[in-house]
Amino acid sequence: MGNCCERAANFFGPQKNTYIRVSLPAVCFVWQIAMVVLFGVFIRYDEESDEKGWNEFKKSHNITSNIENDFYFRYPSFQDVHVMIFVGFGFLMTFLKRYSFGGVGFNFLIAAFGLQWALLMQGWFHALDPVTGKITIGIESLINADFCCAGSLIAYGALLGKVSPVQLMVVTLFGVTLFAVEEYIILDLFHCRDAGGAMVIHTFGGYYGLAISWVLYRPNLNLSKRLNGSVYHSDLFAMIGALFLWMFWPSFNSAITNHGAGQHRTVINTYLALASCVLTTFAISSMSQKKGKLDMVHIQNASLAAGVAMGTAAELMITPYGSIIVGFCCGIISTFGYLYVTPFLEKKLKLQDTCGIHNLHAVPGMLGGFVGAIVAATATEEIYGKEGLIETFDLTGKFENRTMSTQGGYQAAGTCVAIAFGLVGGVCVGFILRFPIWGDPADDFCFDDEAYWEQESSPLYILMSFMQLTNMN
Amino acid sequence: MGNCCERAANFFGPQKNTYIRVSLPAVCFVWQIAMVVLFGVFIRYDEESDEKGWNEFKKSHNITSNIENDFYFRYPSFQDVHVMIFVGFGFLMTFLKRYSFGGVGFNFLIAAFGLQWALLMQGWFHALDPVTGKITIGIESLINADFCCAGSLIAYGALLGKVSPVQLMVVTLFGVTLFAVEEYIILDLFHCRDAGGAMVIHTFGGYYGLAISWVLYRPNLNLSKRLNGSVYHSDLFAMIGALFLWMFWPSFNSAITNHGAGQHRTVINTYLALASCVLTTFAISSMSQKKGKLDMVHIQNASLAAGVAMGTAAELMITPYGSIIVGFCCGIISTFGYLYVTPFLEKKLKLQDTCGIHNLHAVPGMLGGFVGAIVAATATEEIYGKEGLIETFDLTGKFENRTMSTQGGYQAAGTCVAIAFGLVGGVCVGFILRFPIWGDPADDFCFDDEAYWEQESSPLYILMSFMQLTNMN
Amino acid sequence: MGNCCERAANFFGPQKNTYIRVSLPAVCFVWQIAMVVLFGVFIRYDEESDEKGWNEFKKSHNITSNIENDFYFRYPSFQDVHVMIFVGFGFLMTFLKRYSFGGVGFNFLIAAFGLQWALLMQGWFHALDPVTGKITIGIESLINADFCCAGSLIAYGALLGKVSPVQLMVVTLFGVTLFAVEEYIILDLFHCRDAGGAMVIHTFGGYYGLAISWVLYRPNLNLSKRLNGSVYHSDLFAMIGALFLWMFWPSFNSAITNHGAGQHRTVINTYLALASCVLTTFAISSMSQKKGKLDMVHIQNASLAAGVAMGTAAELMITPYGSIIVGFCCGIISTFGYLYVTPFLEKKLKLQDTCGIHNLHAVPGMLGGFVGAIVAATATEEIYGKEGLIETFDLTGKFENRTMSTQGGYQAAGTCVAIAFGLVGGVCVGFILRFPIWGDPADDFCFDDEAYWEQESSPLYILMSFMQLTNMN
Repeated sequence: MGNCCERAANFFGPQKNTYIRVSLPAVCFVWQIAMVVLFGVFIRYDEESDEKGWNEFKKSHNITSNIENDFYFRYPSFQDVHVMIFVGFGFLMTFLKRYSFGGVGFNFLIAAFGLQWALLMQGWFHALDPVTGKITIGIESLINADFCCAGSLIAYGALLGKVSPVQLMVVTLFGVTLFAVEEYIILDLFHCRDAGGAMVIHTFGGYYGLAISWVLYRPNLNLSKRLNGSVYHSDLFAMIGALFLWMFWPSFNSAITNHGAGQHRTVINTYLALASCVLTTFAISSMSQKKGKLDMVHIQNASLAAGVAMGTAAELMITPYGSIIVGFCCGIISTFGYLYVTPFLEKKLKLQDTCGIHNLHAVPGMLGGFVGAIVAATATEEIYGKEGLIETFDLTGKFENRTMSTQGGYQAAGTCVAIAFGLVGGVCVGFILRFPIWGDPADDFCFDDEAYWEQESSPLYILMSFMQLTNMN
Repeated sequence: MGNCCERAANFFGPQKNTYIRVSLPAVCFVWQIAMVVLFGVFIRYDEESDEKGWNEFKKSHNITSNIENDFYFRYPSFQDVHVMIFVGFGFLMTFLKRYSFGGVGFNFLIAAFGLQWALLMQGWFHALDPVTGKITIGIESLINADFCCAGSLIAYGALLGKVSPVQLMVVTLFGVTLFAVEEYIILDLFHCRDAGGAMVIHTFGGYYGLAISWVLYRPNLNLSKRLNGSVYHSDLFAMIGALFLWMFWPSFNSAITNHGAGQHRTVINTYLALASCVLTTFAISSMSQKKGKLDMVHIQNASLAAGVAMGTAAELMITPYGSIIVGFCCGIISTFGYLYVTPFLEKKLKLQDTCGIHNLHAVPGMLGGFVGAIVAATATEEIYGKEGLIETFDLTGKFENRTMSTQGGYQAAGTCVAIAFGLVGGVCVGFILRFPIWGDPADDFCFDDEAYWEQESSPLYILMSFMQLTNMN
Repeated sequence: MGNCCERAANFFGPQKNTYIRVSLPAVCFVWQIAMVVLFGVFIRYDEESDEKGWNEFKKSHNITSNIENDFYFRYPSFQDVHVMIFVGFGFLMTFLKRYSFGGVGFNFLIAAFGLQWALLMQGWFHALDPVTGKITIGIESLINADFCCAGSLIAYGALLGKVSPVQLMVVTLFGVTLFAVEEYIILDLFHCRDAGGAMVIHTFGGYYGLAISWVLYRPNLNLSKRLNGSVYHSDLFAMIGALFLWMFWPSFNSAITNHGAGQHRTVINTYLALASCVLTTFAISSMSQKKGKLDMVHIQNASLAAGVAMGTAAELMITPYGSIIVGFCCGIISTFGYLYVTPFLEKKLKLQDTCGIHNLHAVPGMLGGFVGAIVAATATEEIYGKEGLIETFDLTGKFENRTMSTQGGYQAAGTCVAIAFGLVGGVCVGFILRFPIWGDPADDFCFDDEAYWEQESSPLYILMSFMQLTNMN
């Protein structure tokens, strides 16, 4: 079988070398050993997960019940987020007919590495104890680490099928690093609210991936055109990913919001926006085709855009109908993106975006950042209560006297920072990835699991290959 | 490919028009805009999700910890229910060989619309503040909205493959409306207990779908016979749906039961009944075939019947062995239904029930209603404690003096109301759906995603179509 | 189709009788009726799920809020464990090209029976009230019952495709029984800690399955070789199972650990070990193939080994970097196992291990037992605090004065007990399964759903069978 396929590939032209037997194990081993060392030096349990610490914490805070451990506020949402990262993102990327292993498999590799590196990077920037020099971690750190991976996984969406796993490890190493820095600027220096990461995760991740893909433009990618599409069952696998993302997005946006009414309201807002988005997605998808038929690509992707766009505003008092309006618009914008913007980007801007992250993450994320800015700027004590306003925007310490319009301004500025980090960081990483040492596939060997995965030589696959060669489709 | 398939269809007879390019977008847009307006007028956060409200609530109720927000009692169950609605129901309906997109995709559309409409309808009937004229929503409202959708999704099971998405939107609009009314009668006027909805969800939804399907009877449906069945992989996709329904049914039944022992006991009862049901399903399925082979249809469906049948009684003190007995009987009854009743209904009653909702929802739901009536009628202070009896059946206010046998009588009457609403409502909706404006498929074009979904023209599919035409199966 | 396939089978040799029309229903019915009777005699709600009991419990323990019901500490983890048992284990076993129904279907049957029997067996050994003679159950009992099933499901992994469902019921009956006894010895008599069951679940289950498979050795299994492998889509289904196991393993290990910091820390440790394990699995998998291609079998299985190996130590203060080191080693050991040990076992020890449970459960479990012993032996008051040490190891009553090194010794001894129970029990059960009455398939009819499942006769399958017969692969 291998022979058969290689011959087919050679028929179209000479093949780049996808040999990764040295580079992939080397990268995995060296970086994982680095993790062991750095975790040994820096990472410790926080007071709510440390046996001794928690007993002291309970005494000092006069807590009588273990149920007040942060674990019980966060764990159900954490597991939902975890499912989104590994099954949601992973299976959403199985839609290509012969790249499903790469979609879900490399997603797994990236996230498993990324979350470790994220615990360190985010720890250094946000949780380094100046006295002990240690980072302490708890359930909220794990959620943030998963979030941080999401940035790189979004970027992977633009690169799907065109890069090697070694390149993806590089994308993740820099992606997580850049993420931690822009997050520090946006959340700590600018003191923005962005619980669901419309800015820090989606806007950054989207533009980061687009910029890399732009630098890695392949003029002859149409040589792999036969594999750049879905088949019936691969679309169903992708639907598993899409639905788990859609269903658990309320958990994503509420996972680290304030205990009590904060988490409660975030869930309601995200839930409503997502429902509304589905209807407009179906509407535009049907309108766009001459017989009114629906396109699975839109259903799988555009119906999620509302979750992204509510990333910032969901925890605020945006009101239920405000959420529905955001969802309404996102379904339209995102589906139009798949219909017109992605082809335009490919033809005019030389930007090949396999999963259409421009329409699912970059634009809705940016939109979400600005929606958040508006909702923040219009917040009043009348709506939130005096206490509620301080809690929601954490207006304590040096931010005590910040006005709401100032807060709105910083939120908007934060969105711009996320875009800038994504674009500049992505271009730099893109150039690093152009070195001819990473084992990426030739233009006629993209979107093909044959490059990096052992394949069963099923007679069915032989038949399919045969028919593809003889132009039966 | 499209050509190939159309020609095949024409070979059997002329084709109805499945053009929905105007009607589907129109329905989606108009109804979604109506949602925006109605939400703007009516829907607000409740006091536990409103920033100001929750701070006041905590003070007035002397609550010190945010963990007592209803959110933390309900959110894990809510997410499980959400998975059941979108992945459970959705993937259970992917079992047809060429209608998996329609199964999971239209399920998605129905539920996304239905839950918004349900928040309004249920709000008007149950939660309209007479002073402010507003409906306030919290996590329990979201669960109830998901439940309300389930009624229409069950009805979709009977119609699967034979209706257009526009018709399904109509089914949902009326289904949710009828649901809210019968729920108001059963839960508020009759003051029944029905936490898992054996009556209000499953009995109603089942008979609603059956009645619609009966009105829409297609005498020449055997023209689509070649597609009315599963293939190997579509059965595996359906198994994903079946298992998520099965696993999360304890959450479904316990999602809105009383805090504390109520939720705890509901989970135990449902868990046991479902386990027991699996064994009798396997037994009857094996007995029914001459070599003892098992049928995936039974495993996917009948093993769920116990969850339905425990919908009312699970929160009561039915005892663990009582639960197992209910499961035992349900597995037998439901599997026999698939073996004998569904074919009988089709032949004698002219009722085409694609998924067999008669055996999975209608009959087990009705059974569950009566089991609940019996368990309620036999409830005593000895078993529940004085306080517990009042709490469990909410015997306060004007229901303070209701005896348990009266309660049992009302429970039984509630089941009858659910059946009546399902049958009468379904017949009326069925006649509406017979207008020739909805874009439903011709008799030889049912069970085919080709009607409403853009299809990849894979060589494999060409081959399959070719072989089907030449009678190779 | 049936004809076609039977003829193909007969071509290779005479066929054993897979007729189970009497035996399977008989076993299911009789055992399920036994469950009804035994539950009626023995099983009652515990005080936190009983309406009256909980009201009294709250008063006697001075509890004001329902949120302190054990249900709210355990339910989210329970549901995750439940998903692991039914979807995780079930879909992980769908990887074979024509045994996916058997993989997920028989897994369902085993677990549904096993959990009922486990509630009784574990109840008699751990929770029998000496006064009333009753077993009381609550949410923790359900988790333990799911855990107990896991032992038998692991054993199924070694037997996959080679046994009949009736044999699997026997495996489960004895597996659960043996489990309850060894668990009683290890947890009660030896007073070991083993919250995630590295010893009691994985070591026992692994060796139990291996011993059975060794006794049931089939010298002519290569007659079914054509079906003993995966196809593209079956590997994707298996990836669903693998990912749900991987994602929810933190819940598995923490489901029954101590409230508060105990559950919190267990999650962190398991999460980190699993992430680390993924990288070394990818590294070794890539190194092992001449072009550096990855093998899905490794990714699906070896990346889970860290969860197993953390089963005992995860709740202890193993430190974050300690967890990462365990994961690092497990990825290497387990992948090497798949590469070299499984083929060695098959050739030299006549042990056919379909899923490679030796590498995923037996060895990592044993390793986990010893890691736990070391971490326990090195525990100090300095690390845990005086109170914390007593709580973590439950050093009360007659174990008040046990030293940590003694504890470590008992932990190591517990691992040996688990191995012994697995091996001896497995050999005995294996001999029972060799009676020619169980309807197991002939050597040329293994790994084939045709034996026990009604099959759609798709033209595609006919084509595949045809090509397999004519040696196209």
